[in-house]
Amino acid sequence: MTETWDELPKPQPLLIVLSGPSGVGKDTVLSRMKQRMLDFHFVVTATTRAARPGEVHGRDYFFISNDAFAEMINQNELFEWARVYSDFKGIPKQQVRDALATGRDVVMRLDVQGAATVKQLCPDALTIFIAPASEAELVDRLRERKTETPEGLQLRIATARQELARMKEFDYFVINRDEALEEAVDTILAIIAAEHSRVQPRRVQL
Amino acid sequence: MTETWDELPKPQPLLIVLSGPSGVGKDTVLSRMKQRMLDFHFVVTATTRAARPGEVHGRDYFFISNDAFAEMINQNELFEWARVYSDFKGIPKQQVRDALATGRDVVMRLDVQGAATVKQLCPDALTIFIAPASEAELVDRLRERKTETPEGLQLRIATARQELARMKEFDYFVINRDEALEEAVDTILAIIAAEHSRVQPRRVQL
Repeated sequence: MTETWDELPKPQPLLIVLSGPSGVGKDTVLSRMKQRMLDFHFVVTATTRAARPGEVHGRDYFFISNDAFAEMINQNELFEWARVYSDFKGIPKQQVRDALATGRDVVMRLDVQGAATVKQLCPDALTIFIAPASEAELVDRLRERKTETPEGLQLRIATARQELARMKEFDYFVINRDEALEEAVDTILAIIAAEHSRVQPRRVQL
Repeated sequence: MTETWDELPKPQPLLIVLSGPSGVGKDTVLSRMKQRMLDFHFVVTATTRAARPGEVHGRDYFFISNDAFAEMINQNELFEWARVYSDFKGIPKQQVRDALATGRDVVMRLDVQGAATVKQLCPDALTIFIAPASEAELVDRLRERKTETPEGLQLRIATARQELARMKEFDYFVINRDEALEEAVDTILAIIAAEHSRVQPRRVQL
């Protein structure tokens, strides 16, 4: 055997999109993931609003000028962007490219519509839908927030229901049951490990 | 919200094929899997040879007559079969159907050629290739067996090399490094967990 076997696929970093309906617990899942998964880059959003006391540029947000933001739009350098009151926010592609270039997986947390946009731009993104165990459980969680008028709550429930119906556009689903957060995070980490074991890996192109 | 959300995919049992080159440690991986993964069915091979002392029908093998074996061939009821000296052995499809019908995952351990045959018959089988960390590590393991003539060893090395080249036909690869068995089993269990989280599950048809 003089030739060397060189068939192991080269490791490819993943672009991981975590999403799910309003109220399902995306932020809780993500903060636990950050504790357990040591080496990934979590995307930072760019915003045109001013930094608030304690906020750090590059950690909480990239604080950029309106001109710089407009330039990124023109160059097609944002995954998606939105106007929030008089400010703009969006996810710059360059930081994702830079992080992937270091070989690290990149994680984004997005609402269902944003996840669909990223998947369209980048079909090799790995999309995970965090789902409730049942619709009733999700409605209960939305009710428990108690921060809304009855009309506001009804609107959020209707939105969550529309979002649930879009699960089929995702690659994987992970159920975030009440009081079983660790199980949900276990499954997400298993999905990531499995994806790194694919013989034909995803190749993210941005 | 009067309608009930009913979008969670129905759980589908998997047909899992574990394979890899001669000498890579398939049996060691499998026996550790049996200890850690509680609820799966490991396929039992049918054979026309007589039971040896201590062998149990249905556990070690299905001991069947030549006529029964010939009938299974005629009915296309074997995944694959082979003549071993004057006896025949093969994997009956019916036990796989029966086990899947109970909702349990089914695991088969096959050589690389057998795995390719099953994948052809059943494209939705989940195929995992157990790989060495390097060709050199595999050759060392084959040498350490010391049960063969130099010519026999060369033949086994040449075969293993051909088998390595077929990794690309598999869905996943898992590296079984020397002294890192637990890591290999962790990855296999992660792959199985991830596959059970697919929004579009594999649907095994036999």
